[in-house]
Amino acid sequence: MPRWEPNARERLVHAAAELFAEQGYEATTVNEIAERAGGLTKTTFFRHFTDKREVLFAGQEIHGRIVAEAIAGAPESATPLEMVGLALDRLASSFTEDRREIARRLRAVIAKSAELQERSASKQAALGESMAQALREHGVPPLVADLAADVGARAFYGALERWTSSADQRTLAEHAREIFGELKAAISVLE
Amino acid sequence: MPRWEPNARERLVHAAAELFAEQGYEATTVNEIAERAGGLTKTTFFRHFTDKREVLFAGQEIHGRIVAEAIAGAPESATPLEMVGLALDRLASSFTEDRREIARRLRAVIAKSAELQERSASKQAALGESMAQALREHGVPPLVADLAADVGARAFYGALERWTSSADQRTLAEHAREIFGELKAAISVLE
Repeated sequence: MPRWEPNARERLVHAAAELFAEQGYEATTVNEIAERAGGLTKTTFFRHFTDKREVLFAGQEIHGRIVAEAIAGAPESATPLEMVGLALDRLASSFTEDRREIARRLRAVIAKSAELQERSASKQAALGESMAQALREHGVPPLVADLAADVGARAFYGALERWTSSADQRTLAEHAREIFGELKAAISVLE
Repeated sequence: MPRWEPNARERLVHAAAELFAEQGYEATTVNEIAERAGGLTKTTFFRHFTDKREVLFAGQEIHGRIVAEAIAGAPESATPLEMVGLALDRLASSFTEDRREIARRLRAVIAKSAELQERSASKQAALGESMAQALREHGVPPLVADLAADVGARAFYGALERWTSSADQRTLAEHAREIFGELKAAISVLE
């Protein structure tokens, strides 16, 4: 019977981020990650992640659910971009300050590998698709939903980049609101 | 000394599309593709492509160059979306009717594999990035360039989907102009 491992998933993500940063992604084994996470086992690791790569993208399925729920709960009178703004706020607010350093380390690992960047781009596209689908279900015409979701995904990943690369104490939600405002201004000068 | 193989690259793409459609992507070997392409060799295959997967995305680097050149040559007075429209027209016009059936087959192969879809999403993002970079070099502010490029990439891949799934005789360029018009209309109702 498996032992109960409190916060095993979170400890594994922390441990992986540390090891990837110290010795590189390729050189790190699942055994080492489990061991560093306070003496967990390989079996526990695979209860939480399908493979080593997956630990880099932990939480991204949850992100899709967060934005979808925020949009589903938006008032009928909201414009597509207002709905995206609500989703962004909800998602960015779920990132607490202690996740900044982990996010910074994982991003550095991803930046070094073409394969991981490909996977990352695909996960980013998936977040956009979650928003677009929720917008369509909320009655937004398909192409409008796609474009609004593109703006939302750009805002979120742009905010993540600023948050992980800046030294100031602003929250991810503050960065997201700022860049979302800049993107809305950019829309008005497209043509 | 290698024999001169006229249109080897094009013949290999044709042969691969046929074989993938007939017997599946996984089951097809590089040797079979080379043989089907009129008795070419594996060596010739690898002179044109790094691996079997690459043949599915043949030409996508060229697409990046086509859009970049079109944008670089756009008049200074053009708006960001006008520049994207020029790039789209140039790119879509480079697709002749005989490529429709090949594109249709390759898309069917990609649709069946999560890994190939991931690669495809990353190649689509690369086309957008080529446009965005060319726009920035043409003086367009970064976020505006990103959004305009998103619209352009959506228009191109949306047009490709309609072109390969429709039975009518409209060209890819006609589909691209139509969907680009729809996307511009969608922008005006974002907020």
